[in-house]
Amino acid sequence: MPSDTDTVEISSIADPLAIAQALIRCRSVTPEEGGALQYLADLLAGAGFEAEVVRFSEDGTEDVQNLYARIGAGPPHLTFAGHTDVVPPGEESRWRHPPFAAEVEDGTLYGRGAVDMKGAVACFAAAALDYLKANGTPAGTISLLITGDEEGVSINGTRKLLAWAKQRGETFDHALVGEPTNPDTLGDMIKIGRRGSLSGTITITGKQGHSAYPHLANNPVRGMAKVLESLFAEPLDTGTDVFDASTLEVTSVDVGNPAFNVIPAKASARFNVRFNDLHTAESLRARIDRRVEEALAGSGLAGQVDYVPNAAEAFRTEAGDIAELLSQTIEEETGRRPALSTTGGTSDARYIKDYCPVIEFGLVGQTMHQVDEHVAVADLGALTAIYRRFLDRYFDRFGG
Amino acid sequence: MPSDTDTVEISSIADPLAIAQALIRCRSVTPEEGGALQYLADLLAGAGFEAEVVRFSEDGTEDVQNLYARIGAGPPHLTFAGHTDVVPPGEESRWRHPPFAAEVEDGTLYGRGAVDMKGAVACFAAAALDYLKANGTPAGTISLLITGDEEGVSINGTRKLLAWAKQRGETFDHALVGEPTNPDTLGDMIKIGRRGSLSGTITITGKQGHSAYPHLANNPVRGMAKVLESLFAEPLDTGTDVFDASTLEVTSVDVGNPAFNVIPAKASARFNVRFNDLHTAESLRARIDRRVEEALAGSGLAGQVDYVPNAAEAFRTEAGDIAELLSQTIEEETGRRPALSTTGGTSDARYIKDYCPVIEFGLVGQTMHQVDEHVAVADLGALTAIYRRFLDRYFDRFGG
Repeated sequence: MPSDTDTVEISSIADPLAIAQALIRCRSVTPEEGGALQYLADLLAGAGFEAEVVRFSEDGTEDVQNLYARIGAGPPHLTFAGHTDVVPPGEESRWRHPPFAAEVEDGTLYGRGAVDMKGAVACFAAAALDYLKANGTPAGTISLLITGDEEGVSINGTRKLLAWAKQRGETFDHALVGEPTNPDTLGDMIKIGRRGSLSGTITITGKQGHSAYPHLANNPVRGMAKVLESLFAEPLDTGTDVFDASTLEVTSVDVGNPAFNVIPAKASARFNVRFNDLHTAESLRARIDRRVEEALAGSGLAGQVDYVPNAAEAFRTEAGDIAELLSQTIEEETGRRPALSTTGGTSDARYIKDYCPVIEFGLVGQTMHQVDEHVAVADLGALTAIYRRFLDRYFDRFGG
Repeated sequence: MPSDTDTVEISSIADPLAIAQALIRCRSVTPEEGGALQYLADLLAGAGFEAEVVRFSEDGTEDVQNLYARIGAGPPHLTFAGHTDVVPPGEESRWRHPPFAAEVEDGTLYGRGAVDMKGAVACFAAAALDYLKANGTPAGTISLLITGDEEGVSINGTRKLLAWAKQRGETFDHALVGEPTNPDTLGDMIKIGRRGSLSGTITITGKQGHSAYPHLANNPVRGMAKVLESLFAEPLDTGTDVFDASTLEVTSVDVGNPAFNVIPAKASARFNVRFNDLHTAESLRARIDRRVEEALAGSGLAGQVDYVPNAAEAFRTEAGDIAELLSQTIEEETGRRPALSTTGGTSDARYIKDYCPVIEFGLVGQTMHQVDEHVAVADLGALTAIYRRFLDRYFDRFGG
């Protein structure tokens, strides 16, 4: 791909910048594979990994490709989980450098996926290849669980890949997810859990009528006011030692009635709850259903709550050992002790936590999903060094 | 206009059915004149009225024609106020008889405007013509103030016609509006006032953000919940001896945010207040502004209320004499004592009340604005008889 800025040649099979550039140059806008998984499979197979690209499908969704690659056998088994699909670049002309050109300018690599998360995938691949070069086959197992469906509907991605691997007899002891966890600087933060997320729509049905004759109508907006009041009335909790307080936000209220003098028949509201492990999606559904029912009691208004399927449950990894091991590694490499956090949105860690303890550590997330997404080339080197040192520490600590 | 049901020939200049049919056959869908005012002007001029069709205009509105017709001179001056414009017929094929055919079937006249209010205009015209035939020019003045802009924006209608008449030296002692005031049966109800109406839009502006990071956003829906709670919290009043309680209805709440995981920047609500004479539009604006300000205090959210111009003030006619006179007349003709009421929506009486005492009495309103709007031919005769007898009583009572 021609460029008038400095690009970097692939100089070494274990160079994270070269791998990141190769991945970014694959147009893997979710759920397209774009060559990214095949590139990674070939790279890993060349180093002795058993690599398989697996396709999952489901009615109503597009087929998605995923990669599972492993080397070694038996415990301890560390799996690195990530994705090569990316969000769309938006208007490409607004980018400083084309979003799939992977150009480097002044020590910064530009491109969609630079931090979320082709960059971290490249770092782990480079670290693993370097580890193998230095140590040969590990005294245990290293694997990579890479999906092409993290940024999309997440139906044919990590969840199915985990089930597929389990069916093949794979057992994981620990998982490391490469999502961009650092708010400002590499080394800021490890995620040891995630809040859950539950969304839904409340619909209140009353009786239409003329504003001059409200006694002949039943205004659903009155009921909506009571429902909102009840939902907002008291905080869900005040947080825990590792979790922020749970939050409920009503993100839309809609009637769509252009006439001032007509009382509408229906009002709806959309909400999203981000919750910690004091709740489950089920306990929240029961709570919200009850609040709506109580708020409308005696009003003659009908209320209904429709929840978006596949709510994400909150989880906290009981992973003192591995989080501590990674923290030490990060401190050794960066001089910075990372915070252990459960903030932010959801990630595929919510599926992995059902199989083994999972922690997350990757690049700095500031430019993710934005125009001019970019990463410092130095950060790619530093993250590779962290992952590389962590592989040593991991097999020292958990190996036989 | 051909028809396979029985139609009635114009048999007499003072036949209310014939006049009503002639008026209904004019397609005067607001603000179109459709020939209705000219027909009426010619009819009245033929009986000695000085009749003038006056056109008013204003930037941003359509020109509207209005009719002022008077006979006699000096006090007492009774003006009959009404309109010949009608609301649109909707889907004409859904009508039993074409909406502008004015067909009679089984003693019932069908057509748009039959009760609201070409029928009552026809009855008053017939009554006035009959009165003149019997008594000659009255010992005072009879006039008709007929607008073509009552069902529309009401900008180039009665309000301007009143000002125009005043400028020409016309002074009114009493006004009778022919709106359909009877809920069920002719003679049920006289209106001696109307509640006011005030509408507006509340806009709350906060700060957009991601649902997972509500502390970085400021959700305007939270402010909207508080505003709605405050507006609905306590009734405006409990009514008075002649007025129902004032009501406030929020008729729409709108955000229009399709994303569950995005906190919106803006939320709006539309409301309509129907108020009695314990309030004015100004006192209500101050109250609503204050409630919104208080509800949002300390939230960091910005609130703005935009009121629809030309709010209708509540009024009650201090018109004991004339209401009593009309009540007696109605009782004599129908055997029924009408209730004196202030219920329902607004009418052009809100403008007339600034010039003279005004009462309202017309046909049965049940089918107004509906498909198959219709009136019993017997009701046209009965209302004409009431108006006719009232003219006698009026000049007996108030004449020199």
